Amino acid sequence: MHGYTGTCLRVRLGDSAVIEEKIPEEALRKFIGGVGLGAYYLYNETDGTTEPLDPDNRLVFSTGPFALSGIPSTGRHSVAARSPLTGIWGEADCGGYWGLALKSNGFDAVVVQGKSAKPVYVYIEGGKASLLSAYNLWGKDTFETDAALKQKHGEDIVVQCIGQAGENQVPLSAIVCDGRDARTAARCGLGAVMGSKHLKAIVVKRGSWKPSIAHEEKLRVEIRETAAFQVKNRNGMYEHGTAEGLIGNEVSGDLPIKNWSMGSWDGKSVKITGEVLTEKYLTDRFHCGNCVVGCGRTIKFTDKDGNEIHGGGPEYETIGCLGSNLLVEDMETICRANDMCNRWGLDTISTGGVIGFAMECQEKGLIDSSLTEGLSLEWGNGDAVLSLIEAIAFRKGLGRILGRGVKKAAENFGPLAKEFAIESKGLEFPAHEPRVFNSTALSYATSNRGACHLAGGNTRFYEKWLTMPEVGIMEPQNPFAIEGKGEMVANLQNVAGLYDCLKICKFMAVFGVTVTKLLEWLNLITGWNMSMEEFLRAGERVYNVRRMFNVRCGVSRKDDSLPPRILCSTRKKGGAANHLPPLNLMLPQYYEARGWDEFGIPTEQTLERLGLSTGGQ
Amino acid sequence: MHGYTGTCLRVRLGDSAVIEEKIPEEALRKFIGGVGLGAYYLYNETDGTTEPLDPDNRLVFSTGPFALSGIPSTGRHSVAARSPLTGIWGEADCGGYWGLALKSNGFDAVVVQGKSAKPVYVYIEGGKASLLSAYNLWGKDTFETDAALKQKHGEDIVVQCIGQAGENQVPLSAIVCDGRDARTAARCGLGAVMGSKHLKAIVVKRGSWKPSIAHEEKLRVEIRETAAFQVKNRNGMYEHGTAEGLIGNEVSGDLPIKNWSMGSWDGKSVKITGEVLTEKYLTDRFHCGNCVVGCGRTIKFTDKDGNEIHGGGPEYETIGCLGSNLLVEDMETICRANDMCNRWGLDTISTGGVIGFAMECQEKGLIDSSLTEGLSLEWGNGDAVLSLIEAIAFRKGLGRILGRGVKKAAENFGPLAKEFAIESKGLEFPAHEPRVFNSTALSYATSNRGACHLAGGNTRFYEKWLTMPEVGIMEPQNPFAIEGKGEMVANLQNVAGLYDCLKICKFMAVFGVTVTKLLEWLNLITGWNMSMEEFLRAGERVYNVRRMFNVRCGVSRKDDSLPPRILCSTRKKGGAANHLPPLNLMLPQYYEARGWDEFGIPTEQTLERLGLSTGGQ
Repeated sequence: MHGYTGTCLRVRLGDSAVIEEKIPEEALRKFIGGVGLGAYYLYNETDGTTEPLDPDNRLVFSTGPFALSGIPSTGRHSVAARSPLTGIWGEADCGGYWGLALKSNGFDAVVVQGKSAKPVYVYIEGGKASLLSAYNLWGKDTFETDAALKQKHGEDIVVQCIGQAGENQVPLSAIVCDGRDARTAARCGLGAVMGSKHLKAIVVKRGSWKPSIAHEEKLRVEIRETAAFQVKNRNGMYEHGTAEGLIGNEVSGDLPIKNWSMGSWDGKSVKITGEVLTEKYLTDRFHCGNCVVGCGRTIKFTDKDGNEIHGGGPEYETIGCLGSNLLVEDMETICRANDMCNRWGLDTISTGGVIGFAMECQEKGLIDSSLTEGLSLEWGNGDAVLSLIEAIAFRKGLGRILGRGVKKAAENFGPLAKEFAIESKGLEFPAHEPRVFNSTALSYATSNRGACHLAGGNTRFYEKWLTMPEVGIMEPQNPFAIEGKGEMVANLQNVAGLYDCLKICKFMAVFGVTVTKLLEWLNLITGWNMSMEEFLRAGERVYNVRRMFNVRCGVSRKDDSLPPRILCSTRKKGGAANHLPPLNLMLPQYYEARGWDEFGIPTEQTLERLGLSTGGQ
Repeated sequence: MHGYTGTCLRVRLGDSAVIEEKIPEEALRKFIGGVGLGAYYLYNETDGTTEPLDPDNRLVFSTGPFALSGIPSTGRHSVAARSPLTGIWGEADCGGYWGLALKSNGFDAVVVQGKSAKPVYVYIEGGKASLLSAYNLWGKDTFETDAALKQKHGEDIVVQCIGQAGENQVPLSAIVCDGRDARTAARCGLGAVMGSKHLKAIVVKRGSWKPSIAHEEKLRVEIRETAAFQVKNRNGMYEHGTAEGLIGNEVSGDLPIKNWSMGSWDGKSVKITGEVLTEKYLTDRFHCGNCVVGCGRTIKFTDKDGNEIHGGGPEYETIGCLGSNLLVEDMETICRANDMCNRWGLDTISTGGVIGFAMECQEKGLIDSSLTEGLSLEWGNGDAVLSLIEAIAFRKGLGRILGRGVKKAAENFGPLAKEFAIESKGLEFPAHEPRVFNSTALSYATSNRGACHLAGGNTRFYEKWLTMPEVGIMEPQNPFAIEGKGEMVANLQNVAGLYDCLKICKFMAVFGVTVTKLLEWLNLITGWNMSMEEFLRAGERVYNVRRMFNVRCGVSRKDDSLPPRILCSTRKKGGAANHLPPLNLMLPQYYEARGWDEFGIPTEQTLERLGLSTGGQ
């Protein structure tokens, strides 16, 4: 089969079995790959009673048809499981090189199930997999784990592992790849699922397998042109990374400030931009597999305890959530916080969110001082931030509560705390403001994994400057408009899901990659000759199968919500200071566009149209 | 003191003590009377840990300054307690004669606390109160109780009592006055509070005490003119009662149909209007104390089991909730349902709400058949309605679950059931649609006792034809407008609260009684010479002290909400079929108008302005 071996590596930790399985071509065509495969396995192999930390939960790592095709920015993979943070559908997307390494061994996905009695890791080399003891790795952080494994297996491996947070089954824990470069599958606490299975790492030695490409020459031309265009246009993203011009996010009102309570920081965010990072700490730029943009940062500095810190630098999301959101204006503190999260394996977005929440709780007198043990959580206190990160990773004191995420933590601090618990479906907000763009609001409220900036593929860009004629967005939309927003967001989510299936970076949408191109490339690789209609329907299917997973967990319209602060509090200053998202007016349109009923449940007719009515097959 | 003796009768059931206490004149002036006095006692004598069915909960019965003044439609009293249905502020307003009878004994209020070891009732005669055994009354319905007490104490008493539902502490239970005429303090389950205290009734023999009126002659002129005007204009309300022209409510979209899922019943509501009641069942009209309008119905018919039913007929609210909301189109069934609720002591609004909820649950397959015991809850099945009313009153089978109200019942039937649980703050909706008038939506969401059509004093009238220049409503408002709605609703709630303090029927607003008149009359009675500013501030104070009671129970903005169906589902047909209330856009305006903070908590400044900052005194 062109582009695919259609091979899944099933790892049964309960009886230490490692099995190769075929993925039916029909499943590949219906679910494309990546997150689609994750959904396919999760939906079919678990049910509503499978608890996140049960051995029966599946943890699915998957690449897609673009892996090893040479298309720029396709070194990504998906991780999926029922989430211990939110209790519903969990997914995380990861850059770096792990996906390519897996594919170079001829595997499209790894499905992990069961629980090992003792810590283990999966080792893949030459198209074969084995389970090895992680006895000596348990307790090590992700950088140490990476180094130890390289010492054992050589430098030509890519390690995907958890740190102490994952071992401790902290619901905010991440899975970390590429050692110090620290590409992370961060969201939804999937590191804790690994921890619950006593699985420390999945290690892949780069192999020599290459996918057959149906129309190799044509694809090579496309790749050359695309890469050339991107090198020419990468500009700021290359220079200063994702946090380039972060001050612009403050000005537009898009940046979270002080636990989402302020619309302006009086320009202080100029201290924590990508430009500052470049100027003070940058030693190199990190390119994920096949990427010519290189938005990743490699930094180096000596912290105040004299430790030399070198490794991945903070992304925009990290700076927003661990910086402005906490009124931390010291870039070095943010870099150290980021480094700690990477080492111990924590999601920087959720960690920033829950620390901001804790700061507001203390400000309002809702945290008993016996819990804070003398720690002063005033806004901007970088030392407190670093202490809390450690407490969260190692489940100490207040960290035991905070590590469960904002939604559950709020239950500990009295009913008022729910007023400023900034999450949706239990997932902490990423660093973009739903009060600036109605599409952001609608997408956060309806995203399958909870508040997600990626499920809609940066919907706000289509309210500023981008178009997507393939789904009828012929010109940039008015961010405050209500009419038509439901259909727009549903379409953008379907397309964003296709990015997650194909495994190509979503930034490519701003680097000239159209939906038409994606489909063209898919057909050049696979020879499927898929129509645009079938392609878009696959995106819709992958969105809906995840919704159905959630419906099984009890999700319905009541959960497609935003926190009271976001719905009801204007921000007085800054861009779009007076706008509030009219979520309840947009939701019915959205359901109609999706073919969901009054309660946000896909109708039988919709499921039939998508070939999902018999349970995801 | 003119108009008032300022006397409270405190009943301590724990040690069987009955004590007369003075109410400070300052408290009377700040809280006016009625529900204001209820709030004064509840706020000062309980705290956030006082559970509704604790002996420590207070149950306050109160009249106001208008009682026995001769002003039309002032035969009302208030009942207040922490609610066993909602867990927060509970109040119910009652017509009839009990309040006048109490006042004629020189008492302004009765505060009940503690719990009697054995069933008792309070007997008041000649300005003296005693506790008598209710041993022979316990287990009797309200009509039987009334009859038995009249047999013992003579016909010249007014009985306020509970039926079996209250004895059984059903959270939907009402307190019933005036025997078969059945005026009820129905909402918030206050009958269960009486039941928990083993208090069967408060019986008052009409006395001879009369309030001194500061300016008696002037008031007499006012009364004469007002009564004459009202007799001339009472028209339909006198002819056909509150359900007069109910078909108009269907046409405008205001009537609940099929658990709030439909906007039109294709005109079928013509079968259950007040006109039908007049034609088929009416034997007399009931006038509450001093009322010349006479909207109360007295009816008579023989039910299909051959029982002769005579007594109070169903109000608009009852017909909406137990009729159209259940697709019951048989008026006789509604009359029987109403009669059962009156006898056993249940709130017809909440009972109708929870039965509609159960019908939808069964339709959607969410109720296990073992619970329904063969009962078929299909829409419009009158026999099922009557069976469920009995099951609720006597806590049998499914009735055990339904009697706890829609919000708690929903927890039994899976997460989807929450989608159509029509309540706010745990109180079932009365029969007016928040999707037709934005003011109704905002007022339901913010009312202190939960979804309430009275807290704003029929706000929708000010979006149709009424004005209230005293609070700046110079012309009827646009029902779909957002701007200005917060201030409008806050003002109307403050004024409605004054009606509840003075104890005058809110229908008087449509019979020529202006806010200016209310104040003029208050001053003529008391001689207080109160300014309009002080008067309106008292209304605001009484609203805020109840809010503070709720804040103490954990209420904040997150609770000022409406159910997903009301926020997100349009109704396809009927009046205002496509309109949805933009609640989150109105709430911030409302809080600003109220001087509440971001979270809906009154600011210290607001409390100070209202003289509430030291705890309601």
